[in-house]
Amino acid sequence: MAQFINRKETLVTEAIDGLLRTAGGRLARLDGYPHIKVVVRTDWDRSRVALVSGGGSGHEPAHAGFVGQGMLTAAVCGDVFASPSVDAVLAGILAVTGKAGCLLIVKNYTGDRLNFGLAAERARAFGLRVSMVVVDDDVALPDLPQPRGVAGTLFVHKIAGALAEDGADLDTVTDAAQRVIKGVVSIGMSLDTCTVPGSPKEDRIARGKAELGLGIHGEAGAEQVDFDGAAQAMEMVVDRLAPNIGSGPHVALLNNLGGATPLEMGVLAEELVRSRIGGQVRWLVGPAPLMTSLDMQGFSVSLLPVGGADEAALQAPVAPWAWPGCHAVGDVATVPLPDGLAPIQPIASEDAATEAFLRDVCTALIACETDLNALDAKSGDGDTGSTLAGAARALLDAMDRLPLADLTQLYRAIGLELSQTMGGSSGVLLAIFFAAAGDASGGGRDATGALKAGLDRIQQVGGARPGDRTMIDALLPALEALPQGLGPAAQAAREGADRTAQMTRAKAGRASYVSEDKLAGHNDPGAEAVARLFEHIAGRG
Amino acid sequence: MAQFINRKETLVTEAIDGLLRTAGGRLARLDGYPHIKVVVRTDWDRSRVALVSGGGSGHEPAHAGFVGQGMLTAAVCGDVFASPSVDAVLAGILAVTGKAGCLLIVKNYTGDRLNFGLAAERARAFGLRVSMVVVDDDVALPDLPQPRGVAGTLFVHKIAGALAEDGADLDTVTDAAQRVIKGVVSIGMSLDTCTVPGSPKEDRIARGKAELGLGIHGEAGAEQVDFDGAAQAMEMVVDRLAPNIGSGPHVALLNNLGGATPLEMGVLAEELVRSRIGGQVRWLVGPAPLMTSLDMQGFSVSLLPVGGADEAALQAPVAPWAWPGCHAVGDVATVPLPDGLAPIQPIASEDAATEAFLRDVCTALIACETDLNALDAKSGDGDTGSTLAGAARALLDAMDRLPLADLTQLYRAIGLELSQTMGGSSGVLLAIFFAAAGDASGGGRDATGALKAGLDRIQQVGGARPGDRTMIDALLPALEALPQGLGPAAQAAREGADRTAQMTRAKAGRASYVSEDKLAGHNDPGAEAVARLFEHIAGRG
Repeated sequence: MAQFINRKETLVTEAIDGLLRTAGGRLARLDGYPHIKVVVRTDWDRSRVALVSGGGSGHEPAHAGFVGQGMLTAAVCGDVFASPSVDAVLAGILAVTGKAGCLLIVKNYTGDRLNFGLAAERARAFGLRVSMVVVDDDVALPDLPQPRGVAGTLFVHKIAGALAEDGADLDTVTDAAQRVIKGVVSIGMSLDTCTVPGSPKEDRIARGKAELGLGIHGEAGAEQVDFDGAAQAMEMVVDRLAPNIGSGPHVALLNNLGGATPLEMGVLAEELVRSRIGGQVRWLVGPAPLMTSLDMQGFSVSLLPVGGADEAALQAPVAPWAWPGCHAVGDVATVPLPDGLAPIQPIASEDAATEAFLRDVCTALIACETDLNALDAKSGDGDTGSTLAGAARALLDAMDRLPLADLTQLYRAIGLELSQTMGGSSGVLLAIFFAAAGDASGGGRDATGALKAGLDRIQQVGGARPGDRTMIDALLPALEALPQGLGPAAQAAREGADRTAQMTRAKAGRASYVSEDKLAGHNDPGAEAVARLFEHIAGRG
Repeated sequence: MAQFINRKETLVTEAIDGLLRTAGGRLARLDGYPHIKVVVRTDWDRSRVALVSGGGSGHEPAHAGFVGQGMLTAAVCGDVFASPSVDAVLAGILAVTGKAGCLLIVKNYTGDRLNFGLAAERARAFGLRVSMVVVDDDVALPDLPQPRGVAGTLFVHKIAGALAEDGADLDTVTDAAQRVIKGVVSIGMSLDTCTVPGSPKEDRIARGKAELGLGIHGEAGAEQVDFDGAAQAMEMVVDRLAPNIGSGPHVALLNNLGGATPLEMGVLAEELVRSRIGGQVRWLVGPAPLMTSLDMQGFSVSLLPVGGADEAALQAPVAPWAWPGCHAVGDVATVPLPDGLAPIQPIASEDAATEAFLRDVCTALIACETDLNALDAKSGDGDTGSTLAGAARALLDAMDRLPLADLTQLYRAIGLELSQTMGGSSGVLLAIFFAAAGDASGGGRDATGALKAGLDRIQQVGGARPGDRTMIDALLPALEALPQGLGPAAQAAREGADRTAQMTRAKAGRASYVSEDKLAGHNDPGAEAVARLFEHIAGRG
C-alpha cells in the first residue's frame, strides 16, 4: 500500500524534523543524522534526573512525542522497528545527563536491552550515574519469562517523569519506575496487520478473525480468535488481564495501535468501563494513540494499580501534547432535554378574508400539480408539483388550527406546518421562509417586508443566489415589485420564471447536477410555481 | 473490513458515552438518545455567546472533541456522515443559549445548512438571538459556487471560541467567524477510501494513484492523480492552494484525515514547510487528526491569513485535549553531538604475568572452537565456538594496546575490544560484562567481586537468570566458588555446565525457540565454554 513518505531511508529523519519544526521551540535534535536520531528538551539544565527512552520508530507519538517538561528528557529513535545503535543511545545520555544522573527506560526487546545496556556502561565509564529499567508489561504469553514491553511503558514515563520533574533523586525515580513495571500489565488486539514501509503488507488475519496478544512490531499475536464486535473483543482482552491484577483500583491506558478510528476507540472505552473489571478502572488515560504499531487497526489496554502518590503523578500537567491526560472515570453525565423542543402551538383564530385567500392560493397550487411535475421531469425527478400540492393540502387540512387573525403567528404557524408535512430540502426551506417572515413581522416589518426577510434567510441558509435557477429567480423580483401592486408583482414573477429557462448552469439544488442541454428551454419548476401563484392572486391566472 | 463496533445503530451513542466517561466531568450530553446526540460543556453559565457546531459523525475529534472552554459550547452529532435533525440542533441551541445569544457554525453541506437553519428559526421564535455562519473552505472545485466546508472549520471554532470565551458580543463573534470563513482555504488528498460502518469498502483508488480534492464523507475527490511520494503529493496540494492565498503570513492546519500514520504526517509537515509557500506558513496547527473522514489514509491542508489578534486567539489555551495547539513554525533546532562518543582509548601498559595469562586463556578458547560449534549445532546455528574464538583472536591481536598493568582499565579495554569485534547479542553482553567489571574494579572491588558485578549487570541487561540454560549457569557457581580457589571454581563451573544438559526449557536467548527434545542431553555451549576455561586455568584442562 502506498504511503505519504519519500524514501524508507529518510522516513524517520524527515518525520522527526517535521515534529521539531512545530514544537514551538521546545524540542531540538542532536546533530547526528542519519545515524544518531535523538530528540531532546531545549528547556533542560541537567539539574534533575534525566529520563531517556526510545527504541525503534513506528510507535509514534512514542517516543519523541513524549519529550518535554514532566515526561522524557530525550528520546533515542531507531529506524522503523529497529533498535537505535549504542552510539545513538550514548549520545542521548551524554547530551542530557548531569550530576543527578539518568534513568534509561527500555522496552523488553533484546536489541533495545543490549544497546541501551552497553550505552549505559559506556556512560558510566565517564563517571555518570545511569540506571536502567526494563518494561515487560505484555501478558499475552503467560509462560514467557521475558514478556515484551508495550504501551504500559507510558505509565513509567509519566510517573517517573513527574518525580524527576519534582527533583527526586535517581534512586527514588528508579525505584518508582521499578514499582510501576512490577504492577503494570497490558495486552493488545488487532483486526489487521500493519503496513511496514517498503515491505508488502502481510495478509495474515482472515475476515471474522482478530489477533489477541500482539507486540508492537507487526509480529503475529499470541492467538487468532473469532471476532464478533467491540463488546466481545473487550471481553476477551479483559479475560486476559483480569487474572493478572489485584482487587484494588487501577488506572487504565487505552491505546490506539494506530489505525482504529476515534469512533471505535470511543466504543472500546465504553466497553472497558462496562466490563467486569470496569468497577476497578478508576482513572483512564486515553483513548488515544500513545504507543502505536504504524497503521495497525487495533488497540491495547494497560492496567496499573494506583494509590495516592501515583494518582497525583499521573495527573501532573506535562508539556507534550501527545499525552492526553489522566481522567477520573465516571458515569455518563446527562442534562435534561430543554423545554421548547415541542414547537409552540399557535392559538387558532378566525379571519374570513385571510382564510379565503389561503384556501384560494392552496387550491391554485393543487391545480398546478400535473404541470409542475411535468416541468420538473425535464430536469429532476418530476415531483415538484406533488410536493407543493401536498403542502397545500396539508395547509387546507390545518386551516382550523391556524391563527388566521394574527399575521405574525400565521407565518410562523405555516412554517411549522410545512416543516412537519413537507419532505426534503424544499420543505425545510419553505418552513424557514415562513418562520423568518413571522419573526420579521413580529419585529414590525409589513407583510412584504416580512416576506423579503424570509427570502433573505432562505438565501443565507440554502445558499442559492438570484441567477441560480431556483424559485428565488421569480420570488425576488415579485417581492420587489409588490409595493407597486399585485399586477406588476405577477409580471415580474413571470419574467423571472421565464428567465430561468435560459439559466443552463444551475448552481444550487439538484439541478446543479443536470447537464446543461437538459435544462435549456425549460423554466425551473419552483420559479414557475411562484409565477403561477402571483398570476393567480393578481387575477391573471 | 471488520471494525471495533457493536452495531452501526449504536456506534455514535456508544462512542459519545465513551468520550463522556473520560472527560473528567467537563462534558455531559443531553438526555435525548438515540435521536438527540448533543454534547455540552458542564462548566457553562450562559453568560457569554454560545458556540454550537456539529454535523454528521465520522469526523472525530470534530465536533464533540472540541467542546470545552475556549472552543465549542455544544456539539450536535448526527449518525455517521448524516446531518443531525432539526430537533437535535434546536435542543443544542436551547441547552446552552442565554441572553448573549448563540453562533451556529455549520459546514457547507445541504443537510447541515437546512437543519441548522430551521433550528435557528425555531430558536428565534423563542426570542433567542441566533446567528449562523457557513464554512466553505474547500478549493477542490474552483468553479463550484457552493464549496464544501472541511477542516478549515477548526479555525472558526478556535478564533470565535477565544472571542466568545473573552466575552465578546454576538455580532463581534459572528463577524470574526465570517472574516475567518472569507479567508480560509483548504484541500485534501488521500491514497485510499474510507470504511463506512456497515458498508463494503469502495475500491476506487488504484495503486500508484491518489485522489486530490476530497470532501470528508467518502465522496470521490475532484481528480485522480499520479502519486509519487510525499514531496510530490504536498507539491500538488500547494499548487491548488497557492492561487487562492495572498502574499502575507498564514497559519496552516495540517489535518490527518484518519488513517495516515504520525510518521507520514511528520514527513508531510516537513514537506509543507519546505514547499514554495513554506515561507508564508508562520504558524502550524497539527499535524493531528482534527476533522477526519473515518479511517481515510489522507490529509488536508488549510490556510488562513493571520495578523495579531487572530494569532493571539489561535494560541489561547483551551480545555479540549484534541486541539493540538498553534505553534510558530521554525527551523529544526539542532544541538551539537556531545563529546565522548569516541570511546576513551586505554593507555597501553605492560605486565608480563597478565599478558601470559590472557594469551593462555585466548589460546585455550581458540582450541575449543570445533567442539563448541558442534555442541551449538545441536540447538542453534553452530557458531558459538567460532564467535568466541574470533573474540579471542581479536584480543590476541590487541595485546599491544591493552593496559595490562591496570586491572580496572584492562577490564574496560577488553569490553571495548569485544564490543567492536564480536557480532550479535553475545558480543554486546560480554562487552557489558567486562565494562561493568571494570567499573566495579574502579570502585574498589577485588578481581572476583568485579567479575561478579559484571555478571549481575549482564543478568539485568540480558534478562537471563540461573537455570535459563545460558553461560550464567556455569559462570555464577564458578565465581561463587572462586574464593576457595581455582580448583573448586573449575569444579563448580563443570557441574553447572553439565546441569544445563537437563535444562530442556530454555528461557532466554535463541535456545528458547528450540524444542525440548533437541536440547535434552546436550550442554549449553556458552556454559561449556566457561567450564572449559576454568578447567584450563585450574590446570585440569
